[in-house]
Amino acid sequence: MRTERDSLGQKDIPDDAYYGIQSARAAENFPITGTPVHRELYIALAYIKKAAAMANLDVKLLKEPAGSAIIAAADEIIAGQHTAHFIVDSIQGGAGTSINMNMNEVIANRALELLGKRKGDYGSLSPNNHVNMSQSTNDVIPSALKIAAYLLAQQLLATKRRLAEELRKKQVQFHDIIKVARTHLQDAVPVRLGQQFGAYSRVIERDIRRLEQATSDLLWLNMGATAVGTGLNAKPEYIDSVILHLRELLGIEVKRADDLVDATQNTDAYTELSSALKISAVNLSKICNDIRLMASGPITGLNELLLPPRQPGSSIMPGKVNPVMAEVVNQVAFQVLGNDHTIALACEAGQLELNVMGPVIAFNLLQSLKIMNNGIDVFTRFALEGLEANRTRLTANLEKSFSMITALNPHLGYEVAAGLVKDALKTGMTLREIILERGLLTQEELDVILHPEEMTTPGIAGERFLNEDRA
Amino acid sequence: MRTERDSLGQKDIPDDAYYGIQSARAAENFPITGTPVHRELYIALAYIKKAAAMANLDVKLLKEPAGSAIIAAADEIIAGQHTAHFIVDSIQGGAGTSINMNMNEVIANRALELLGKRKGDYGSLSPNNHVNMSQSTNDVIPSALKIAAYLLAQQLLATKRRLAEELRKKQVQFHDIIKVARTHLQDAVPVRLGQQFGAYSRVIERDIRRLEQATSDLLWLNMGATAVGTGLNAKPEYIDSVILHLRELLGIEVKRADDLVDATQNTDAYTELSSALKISAVNLSKICNDIRLMASGPITGLNELLLPPRQPGSSIMPGKVNPVMAEVVNQVAFQVLGNDHTIALACEAGQLELNVMGPVIAFNLLQSLKIMNNGIDVFTRFALEGLEANRTRLTANLEKSFSMITALNPHLGYEVAAGLVKDALKTGMTLREIILERGLLTQEELDVILHPEEMTTPGIAGERFLNEDRA
Amino acid sequence: MRTERDSLGQKDIPDDAYYGIQSARAAENFPITGTPVHRELYIALAYIKKAAAMANLDVKLLKEPAGSAIIAAADEIIAGQHTAHFIVDSIQGGAGTSINMNMNEVIANRALELLGKRKGDYGSLSPNNHVNMSQSTNDVIPSALKIAAYLLAQQLLATKRRLAEELRKKQVQFHDIIKVARTHLQDAVPVRLGQQFGAYSRVIERDIRRLEQATSDLLWLNMGATAVGTGLNAKPEYIDSVILHLRELLGIEVKRADDLVDATQNTDAYTELSSALKISAVNLSKICNDIRLMASGPITGLNELLLPPRQPGSSIMPGKVNPVMAEVVNQVAFQVLGNDHTIALACEAGQLELNVMGPVIAFNLLQSLKIMNNGIDVFTRFALEGLEANRTRLTANLEKSFSMITALNPHLGYEVAAGLVKDALKTGMTLREIILERGLLTQEELDVILHPEEMTTPGIAGERFLNEDRA
Amino acid sequence: MRTERDSLGQKDIPDDAYYGIQSARAAENFPITGTPVHRELYIALAYIKKAAAMANLDVKLLKEPAGSAIIAAADEIIAGQHTAHFIVDSIQGGAGTSINMNMNEVIANRALELLGKRKGDYGSLSPNNHVNMSQSTNDVIPSALKIAAYLLAQQLLATKRRLAEELRKKQVQFHDIIKVARTHLQDAVPVRLGQQFGAYSRVIERDIRRLEQATSDLLWLNMGATAVGTGLNAKPEYIDSVILHLRELLGIEVKRADDLVDATQNTDAYTELSSALKISAVNLSKICNDIRLMASGPITGLNELLLPPRQPGSSIMPGKVNPVMAEVVNQVAFQVLGNDHTIALACEAGQLELNVMGPVIAFNLLQSLKIMNNGIDVFTRFALEGLEANRTRLTANLEKSFSMITALNPHLGYEVAAGLVKDALKTGMTLREIILERGLLTQEELDVILHPEEMTTPGIAGERFLNEDRA
Repeated sequence: MRTERDSLGQKDIPDDAYYGIQSARAAENFPITGTPVHRELYIALAYIKKAAAMANLDVKLLKEPAGSAIIAAADEIIAGQHTAHFIVDSIQGGAGTSINMNMNEVIANRALELLGKRKGDYGSLSPNNHVNMSQSTNDVIPSALKIAAYLLAQQLLATKRRLAEELRKKQVQFHDIIKVARTHLQDAVPVRLGQQFGAYSRVIERDIRRLEQATSDLLWLNMGATAVGTGLNAKPEYIDSVILHLRELLGIEVKRADDLVDATQNTDAYTELSSALKISAVNLSKICNDIRLMASGPITGLNELLLPPRQPGSSIMPGKVNPVMAEVVNQVAFQVLGNDHTIALACEAGQLELNVMGPVIAFNLLQSLKIMNNGIDVFTRFALEGLEANRTRLTANLEKSFSMITALNPHLGYEVAAGLVKDALKTGMTLREIILERGLLTQEELDVILHPEEMTTPGIAGERFLNEDRA
Repeated sequence: MRTERDSLGQKDIPDDAYYGIQSARAAENFPITGTPVHRELYIALAYIKKAAAMANLDVKLLKEPAGSAIIAAADEIIAGQHTAHFIVDSIQGGAGTSINMNMNEVIANRALELLGKRKGDYGSLSPNNHVNMSQSTNDVIPSALKIAAYLLAQQLLATKRRLAEELRKKQVQFHDIIKVARTHLQDAVPVRLGQQFGAYSRVIERDIRRLEQATSDLLWLNMGATAVGTGLNAKPEYIDSVILHLRELLGIEVKRADDLVDATQNTDAYTELSSALKISAVNLSKICNDIRLMASGPITGLNELLLPPRQPGSSIMPGKVNPVMAEVVNQVAFQVLGNDHTIALACEAGQLELNVMGPVIAFNLLQSLKIMNNGIDVFTRFALEGLEANRTRLTANLEKSFSMITALNPHLGYEVAAGLVKDALKTGMTLREIILERGLLTQEELDVILHPEEMTTPGIAGERFLNEDRA
Repeated sequence: MRTERDSLGQKDIPDDAYYGIQSARAAENFPITGTPVHRELYIALAYIKKAAAMANLDVKLLKEPAGSAIIAAADEIIAGQHTAHFIVDSIQGGAGTSINMNMNEVIANRALELLGKRKGDYGSLSPNNHVNMSQSTNDVIPSALKIAAYLLAQQLLATKRRLAEELRKKQVQFHDIIKVARTHLQDAVPVRLGQQFGAYSRVIERDIRRLEQATSDLLWLNMGATAVGTGLNAKPEYIDSVILHLRELLGIEVKRADDLVDATQNTDAYTELSSALKISAVNLSKICNDIRLMASGPITGLNELLLPPRQPGSSIMPGKVNPVMAEVVNQVAFQVLGNDHTIALACEAGQLELNVMGPVIAFNLLQSLKIMNNGIDVFTRFALEGLEANRTRLTANLEKSFSMITALNPHLGYEVAAGLVKDALKTGMTLREIILERGLLTQEELDVILHPEEMTTPGIAGERFLNEDRA
Repeated sequence: MRTERDSLGQKDIPDDAYYGIQSARAAENFPITGTPVHRELYIALAYIKKAAAMANLDVKLLKEPAGSAIIAAADEIIAGQHTAHFIVDSIQGGAGTSINMNMNEVIANRALELLGKRKGDYGSLSPNNHVNMSQSTNDVIPSALKIAAYLLAQQLLATKRRLAEELRKKQVQFHDIIKVARTHLQDAVPVRLGQQFGAYSRVIERDIRRLEQATSDLLWLNMGATAVGTGLNAKPEYIDSVILHLRELLGIEVKRADDLVDATQNTDAYTELSSALKISAVNLSKICNDIRLMASGPITGLNELLLPPRQPGSSIMPGKVNPVMAEVVNQVAFQVLGNDHTIALACEAGQLELNVMGPVIAFNLLQSLKIMNNGIDVFTRFALEGLEANRTRLTANLEKSFSMITALNPHLGYEVAAGLVKDALKTGMTLREIILERGLLTQEELDVILHPEEMTTPGIAGERFLNEDRA
């Protein structure tokens, strides 16, 4: 064990720990969820520490070999090392101070080790003075969250584009299938199954556009704001430099926020991103509800869609298979909606020059991005790609329903049409059979009026046969 | 009383009622909130009925004099007449069918009256066949909601722009006031009061941008979709024409939705708009919380801001005045956040080819738009315009706090600075006094280092006096 | 016009207005929703003003004829008069001060009129000194809200009991109908339709118990707390007396809150009540979703339940009828859930000795109580009472499904049973037919094993026929 | 690797894995959160598996040595072993089937190993036939969730009782401190600091009562329901026995749900429990907000409370310490509120005979219970126990405020009192000084009227000095 000191006193730290006294205090103070901070946040923060060291070297505030040692230690963290030394809980007080100090301490101690010095020997290279140089928790934590969220959002966007593409494929694949549409869950006019999947792809495409819009504010970083956005003790040359280094290291067009006081206290970039996820969650849940409903059965449900079986559904009913890939996306959607609620509450709780609820925002926002990505990914691959239509059932349903009666209204009049429905119900005959039997329309006329193209595009089906005397 | 009939039977209707049997059924079925449907929705719907009549005349489906009578009746409703005849409740089953039928019946009966016929004499001019011609509840209600929401959003945008403008004025007015910033509600480094109001204006400006983005989807109307989006029985020429007429009547660039099946079942335009309002509600609530906090006192609170008194605050404490204009905006924000929740639930409940929860969406969405507009309007006029800073208190606070110590760190070193704070606390002297007494810095140096401009912009305050030996 | 004065200045008030200057200020300050405060709140408040006047007379703080005039004016308001004079908006700043002052002013002016004096002539009878005597907004508004909520909750409880009773009737009515249960929307083992409605009645019964529990805290009134709960300037004898008068006037066992400081600042009685409504809303929405799903069709849906038609469902599809009474309850549920969100936000925003967000809490809480009551009432009468089962469909579904295969497992073994399902699917024969044809079980055995009683109660169906050699 | 088979095919499983093919499928299907299912749920489920094996032995459905081996394996899991073999994600499709099968497979394979057999050799002891005997996912998963939630709730109740106790201690400790109460954040009448902490303890005591009420439904288990609640294939003797064994093993009074069909489809026990947590979260957040506000400063804030320092608050401001223990509880509250939202959505999504959203309910409900417990625990120990009042500041504030003016109203009249406030503001004198100087009241009278006991309990302070001529 080694002993470390801070302004509140001292504490024994395990000898092999890269973290230091402030991380240890935080671990003791916040044993809340048992879930560590998202690793994506640490990686983004390590990039920031690296870029800050480079910028501090540029403006000669930081000296070698400390600078290079910090950069080397940050690189190891970026590469995924030392994760066991990040010991603070996802939910914590202090606006992320403990996340920042955990990083500062791990880098400082690993850098000291690389320089051949003892851990905890902070004289020449300290967590606060060197690793955190020109920075404040209040600028690096929001910056790291924005970077992490931006990168995860790019991944989610790619996954959503694959979902939209797959839905468009289904639109084409199911284009020729006419089915009974349902409004209020009641039989309505005909629609193509392809049109239904086309509608799904459209809404996902809008979700993509909204998500793209919502990520743009994330590129405006807080770097240089220090404590409250006034940039006290951060040299303008350092600020310019750290942004340029980050841009190069990350390969994304990060910028310095125009108004750093604004950027320090306002968290609308997070509510905006979370709202885009929420809107998408609502849409995804609706689509999954539809698919589960259309795949219900096989005997006593709608049984219109056939989902690829992914796992046995019951230990006691032979052959039962459940729509688990849709169910999991429903649950992802509910989680994202709950997370959005938490995020809104946390953002509303900002006070004066700072919002101190950053940790719970980060916890929920990054989770939402990740689980939506993962849920859509497996849904696309395991449920959509192998999805088939039950053409027999769909066609039989269309034939025995009175769905097409609306197309006949202009030709026969509403009153006659209503009578046909009653007679069909009474006799068990189809509408087509009765119409032909009674000579109300010819086979040729019926073929045109009830042609899929006619019934599923705007216009009066078979308009050229319209006959005022008849209708 | 007159007797009207529909497919379910007949019903007696008061002779002077413009509404008919279907409205009466709906009024009986849904005595839920006691609050009528927003009049903005009816006005938008009346515009649609007028445009549809014009389009149906254009394509010769509708004949005169019925067409002109429908248009004249619609014009009266647009002008604000006949509101007592719209009798259905804000929350109702049926996806808006009852709203649509109430409008169809009022127009039909008023048109019949204008034509010198008896109300209820629907042979030549009927709610369904003539007023609703080429339409369906499923296309006109979403179209009306989009128009009403769009127009209210324009009004809200104007109000928000005035708010942002007023905040920018305060930014200028308070530019020269340096105060102690607070992070975690604890004293932190100095900031200009103007910067704080600048931050408020920035976030409102982003709210404006988000609201503008969120309104763009509202211009894509459902007209021509009829029951499920396939446009069955709506002639393409009618669809083109009704959109053109609406564009001209409303003076806004409405368009036909690209994919009408999508437009019929997906309600993301509403979640998107409501989300933009939600984000703004979070921001407004934070601003109001801040202002109430900074105006707390007068004796035992922060007492930094002086709000114009608007009404006596207590019947038992002489002179008590409360920050009621900020409080009301907090409550508006909470209402908007709850409404957003209802809207998300209703949108998630869409099933297959239609979302039938339109009425509760309309109820909440239009309310959110209106109350946010009204709340911001009175807040701007009654709280912000007359808002003053308590300069004496702000300056005194700054002097007695240790807020400026951070600016001295680079000059004196963190350790010496920390010692000064302790000594100041012990002796009751100000930092300035101790520093001068001990000759640590000269008056001139202090004046530069602690110059407002230096302390509230990025950089090391008084960098030119930096002296490595001293720090 | 008459001129009234308060500590902020003067204002012209219409001569015939019972309200006064403070109401007028509030109406000007808060033109937010356009919806007046719930009348149930005013009636409860009028009862409080009456009881307070009686108590103030008892303890000789109030003199006659002022006391009797106040009581007479309050009685008129209780009887439903003067509603047009309550002019403040549902959402308002000031913790209900404006609601209280509107009441104080209306009573004072009407009392003055009854005494033959001029309105506004507050010397002998003033809103603050006489009507509000021994009171504060901070004790009367919460007390009034609790009373109003309690009374509305009693009404809702009665309505819920009728719902539970109707569901229990359906349980009996549908006891003999065996149907295919569905888990994951996939066909599962048999269940009685009566058991399904029994489950609905059980959950509603628990909702009733929860609502009863949640109302008990409402009886603890804030009367006597005055500004912050310390009771400054409220005589103990007055407090005892006002509670006794209220108990007698209202006929409910109201009590003085044990800890008035607690009662002034904590609003958990409202979150608790709203939570009970929320839980019930979730349950009601699930039941309505089920009923809409089971009533889907008539041809291509489940078509198991037949709802009484309440209004035509489509202007273009002959005979379409939608499940509007279930849809409206879904929407009521969504509104209640959104309201609950608003209420939680408003309660969380309480600060120090007072929660000032009372108006938006009252607006939402009373609305939730009323719309849930109204929604359940019409749902019970218009949807449940006439609800019928489609026995033909339910029985046919059971026969053609493989739902009963699970009951055969213990007799034939899982492997043989699975084979039978495959063969049935291949040949189109029913399970019964195949089993008899192959002599796997006798007709008698099958009749016992597949007897409804056996299949829908715990135990191994036909256990006495179990034959280890066979299975 | 060994090869396992199920109805969908076969899969290679690592030789040392206790889990089997169905767990592996689930792990592949649901790589969603990366967070495993709460271990408390697995432990509860292991108890159920043990009790079920005991009951199946009792009713002779299960034979030895399989029974004892299952029990031994379950005991190991209860003792905390084999956690690495529980590989399914917290969010998953399938209503918990994968959690149940993971448990069944781990127990089966570990039991086989204990019997000296090969893993995967399911002939004599299989996950489905033996470990899951007489059970269904649909009865064991809800039962396990109820047990886990109940036990965690007991722990939370104990923690809340310690919090309430600590608050009551502060009530006593701060009883003699009179401070200025604030309503609307504006100075109001005096209150004891002890009364404020008394109010906090009262609301926490009600939270405890609500939580106790909300846990009672958790004791009604689903055991015996099998697939949909009809109990098909579960012998009544088994059901009685499994309940008795669970009662003995767990030491809590679990019971069989009265109506198992109800218990299978309705999830109101979870919304009820989550609502109780939500109500408490609202209250906790309000208390933490208050404490952070009263501890604000030290110079420019209220500075009335002194929190024990727990960790350094800033790397750049010497001596800054933040109220981190209160901040973390705010964030816990926001998380619980978001979780409650997710739970309500998931419960509302139940359909027909089953709610399939159990996994996301369990994930959020158990997390809420745990983090609220952990947050309250550290808050009580690290923030409340060492909390001190800043008596100097509180007393000085009281003296210089006009808080006590209200107590003087009855003696001097409202008009005179109002004049005194104005004069005090003008001259800088205290009210006491002016009153004595003018001879309005004697020193003795003032001492009585402004005596803490008088001003902070109901009644007119110094009533015996009331003098109608004077007032």
